[in-house]
Amino acid sequence: MSWTEDLATLKARTRDVQDLGHTLAVLNWDQEVLMPPKGGPARGRMIGVISRLMHERIADQKVASLLASVESSGKLKPGSDDAAFVRLTRRFHEHAVRVPTELVAEMAENDSRSQQAWVQARPANDFSLVEPLLARSVELRRRVSEYFPEHAHPLDTHIDASDEGMTVAILRGLFRQLRYELVPLVQAVTAKPAPDDSFLNRKFPKAKQLAFSNKVLARLGYDFEAGRLDESAHPFTTTLGAGDKRITTRVHADEHDVLYSLMSTIHEFGHGTYEQNIKEEYDGTPMFAGASSGVHESQSRLWENVVGRSRGFWSYWYPRLQRTFGKALKDVDLEMFLRAINKVETSLIRTEADELTYNLHIIIRFDLECQLMEGSLAVKDLPEAWHARYQSDLGQRAPDDRNGVMQDVHWYGGYWGVFHSYTLGNILSAQFYAAALQQQPELAAQLAVAKTGGLHRWMKKHIYQHGAKYTPAELVQRVTGGPLSIAPYIAYLREKYGELYAL
Amino acid sequence: MSWTEDLATLKARTRDVQDLGHTLAVLNWDQEVLMPPKGGPARGRMIGVISRLMHERIADQKVASLLASVESSGKLKPGSDDAAFVRLTRRFHEHAVRVPTELVAEMAENDSRSQQAWVQARPANDFSLVEPLLARSVELRRRVSEYFPEHAHPLDTHIDASDEGMTVAILRGLFRQLRYELVPLVQAVTAKPAPDDSFLNRKFPKAKQLAFSNKVLARLGYDFEAGRLDESAHPFTTTLGAGDKRITTRVHADEHDVLYSLMSTIHEFGHGTYEQNIKEEYDGTPMFAGASSGVHESQSRLWENVVGRSRGFWSYWYPRLQRTFGKALKDVDLEMFLRAINKVETSLIRTEADELTYNLHIIIRFDLECQLMEGSLAVKDLPEAWHARYQSDLGQRAPDDRNGVMQDVHWYGGYWGVFHSYTLGNILSAQFYAAALQQQPELAAQLAVAKTGGLHRWMKKHIYQHGAKYTPAELVQRVTGGPLSIAPYIAYLREKYGELYAL
Repeated sequence: MSWTEDLATLKARTRDVQDLGHTLAVLNWDQEVLMPPKGGPARGRMIGVISRLMHERIADQKVASLLASVESSGKLKPGSDDAAFVRLTRRFHEHAVRVPTELVAEMAENDSRSQQAWVQARPANDFSLVEPLLARSVELRRRVSEYFPEHAHPLDTHIDASDEGMTVAILRGLFRQLRYELVPLVQAVTAKPAPDDSFLNRKFPKAKQLAFSNKVLARLGYDFEAGRLDESAHPFTTTLGAGDKRITTRVHADEHDVLYSLMSTIHEFGHGTYEQNIKEEYDGTPMFAGASSGVHESQSRLWENVVGRSRGFWSYWYPRLQRTFGKALKDVDLEMFLRAINKVETSLIRTEADELTYNLHIIIRFDLECQLMEGSLAVKDLPEAWHARYQSDLGQRAPDDRNGVMQDVHWYGGYWGVFHSYTLGNILSAQFYAAALQQQPELAAQLAVAKTGGLHRWMKKHIYQHGAKYTPAELVQRVTGGPLSIAPYIAYLREKYGELYAL
Repeated sequence: MSWTEDLATLKARTRDVQDLGHTLAVLNWDQEVLMPPKGGPARGRMIGVISRLMHERIADQKVASLLASVESSGKLKPGSDDAAFVRLTRRFHEHAVRVPTELVAEMAENDSRSQQAWVQARPANDFSLVEPLLARSVELRRRVSEYFPEHAHPLDTHIDASDEGMTVAILRGLFRQLRYELVPLVQAVTAKPAPDDSFLNRKFPKAKQLAFSNKVLARLGYDFEAGRLDESAHPFTTTLGAGDKRITTRVHADEHDVLYSLMSTIHEFGHGTYEQNIKEEYDGTPMFAGASSGVHESQSRLWENVVGRSRGFWSYWYPRLQRTFGKALKDVDLEMFLRAINKVETSLIRTEADELTYNLHIIIRFDLECQLMEGSLAVKDLPEAWHARYQSDLGQRAPDDRNGVMQDVHWYGGYWGVFHSYTLGNILSAQFYAAALQQQPELAAQLAVAKTGGLHRWMKKHIYQHGAKYTPAELVQRVTGGPLSIAPYIAYLREKYGELYAL
């Protein structure tokens, strides 16, 4: 067979793999959004069957020989879609074949038990219930890393899985700089009188919140013909197939937080619109996805924070928000509102943190994760190490482990090498935003009146449409003309908070 | 390997097949209920991939050798669950392997084109647009039948696929008797003054209709922890997994038909509660389904017609219906309401037909289907044959083919050998109901005050829990002590309509 025939066969293969992946997404979406409670056990089994079939297909020996044939042909044009296709298929094939099936199965089982234990341990405030399972989880991840000897740090393997090419060494450098800049900025802002944000907790009827979110989504450019907004316990974005990229949100049951649901909707809009705008011809290939976790998160954070908490955005939307909720916000002017939604406050809980201090929570987690993977920190010493870092970085110590090391599901659910991408997303959101404004200075005037279409088109042209064709580093270089840098993010934060807090 | 090991391997195999089948159900349910419009093409491809994997798994040569090993062991106890498992697995394996893959693919393609053509042809009232595709569909089904030489009539193969053991010969006998009894009964009823049912078309707000349906479902015993009620263009019931058996309904957009949505909900309740009450230990085996299309339909029709249009049922629910809709039904008493919802009227459209004349529509379709499959009727002569039968059997001739031969999607969508099961369901609903009342005479007093729990328990014990363990004929014999018979159905119709119309 010629290399072109082998390439075509390989593409038919990966199309099946993608279709199985999207089938998994349908099974999961339904489970999170509306499956009746008794459907759980069978659904878990179905997800297991489809995952297994998907793994078999990408790990197949036939894929290895097709890949070898195409790679050795010398016919792939560098920079072409086909070259990207082969690179990514090789990457997923390696991930599927290098780690022994038994190890994958053992991790899945341990993760499942560990997450269930966490569900019990957290409210009981009893870390000892999860400690042995967490220790085992770390050990299993260290074993996985051994199958990737090209990585310098054991956490690199897990970071690379979602952020290709990113390493502990690069992140340490970035995060050290960032912390150096953030700490004095947080100190300067929190030294000022704290703005009043109590009015955000008045009563805002759920139906009106959802209707408002839908209006915002439509104006931002979410395509409802190719997606939906539904409710789930934890907001998420998922691709159920080409032309079907859905987002979810959550409205607090007590209806006492007007921003939680709206801001999480805008956050998911960033993820969803990225997925909705990938080139259609990439459907069926591994390019039909975001470039990396970090780049994906850059879009959720761009739309949620850089756009969604800006003066320009609310100069248009705030009068509409006031009208929607009648007298609930009648006595609050735009200035008070802007300061409230951008209130900075050191706190113990990551998910409740503001834009500025959020990164300090992430850096703590990243550093501890590195130490656990290196073996320089034992799991039994983790709760106290957590408290010590919160004391030194945020000046607070949680009263217990429930509000300390057990606050996030990630490690207990087996999500290692993930936290960093939230702060990476913050850094990239500002870097991409700065590049857009530099290349198209007229965007500033548009954004000042909440006209976001121009910015959206710029993102589509430079980022969204390319899907996963470029590595994250290549993409950053192409889009911004330089490597990853925290400078635009620091400049953005200084300008924004300098103005809001009159520093 | 011992035969018990082979049996265990076979069970693991069929469990995967079932999980893939339920995955297909999730993909289809989502498509019908809430998928955004642009998701269609990718969803079709995903359904194709899962269908192909499911077919490969059941048609696999390994299944053949495992089956042969277990069947030849001589160790299967007649009447045992394992014997039923092997019988049904053999049945599905034969269906999967006997018909060549190319023929299956050609049918799927022709069906898809034919159904799309029907969507155009019906409003255009142009049968010539579908004629060649329909002719091809008949020819392809005749070819399929050739792979089942054990069947006496070419339609038998297609009937047997959903109603094991049922044949044209048996149905012809039943339907001849039934028509002989029905025609004079319809004449006697329609000779009486027609009841007024115009008030059923007053305005009934959609949200109240749905809330009322949910109340009825809950009291009938639908398990909302193991299912849901949603809206779709065509009401249906589907099993998305153990513990997840959903039903859908439809409310007319103009809100002018109080009964359509409620009665279709009760109809689907019959299907859904059957599925919900199959023994849990059958999960993963081919017994985890209804016994046949006819037996399934017996339950939808039992609950919709025998129970749901009865005096006892409405003696409880009618005052509640009146209260729900305020003055809309204030001037209508129970007697008027009962006569209206049981109004008999010969008409041209099957889906709008009453309980009594409905069967005449089915018998026409069944007879024409037999003739098409035999080759004694050419597709080009079908429209006129249709009109002739409606003239002779129902005394009416449709003004066009849109309201004639093109009114139902079935044949155009490739659903052959299906119509009969609706009338078979009617016959069985009365036969099972009579058996229940005979064995538990106290049910009559309960049903007279809409207490349906006893009847439901009886159905669960005798029918639902067994799933597909018994063949339809075995089940009827076990449940009623005799073979399939129209006598109870005729007696039920005579009594009901005799009383309502004072015959």
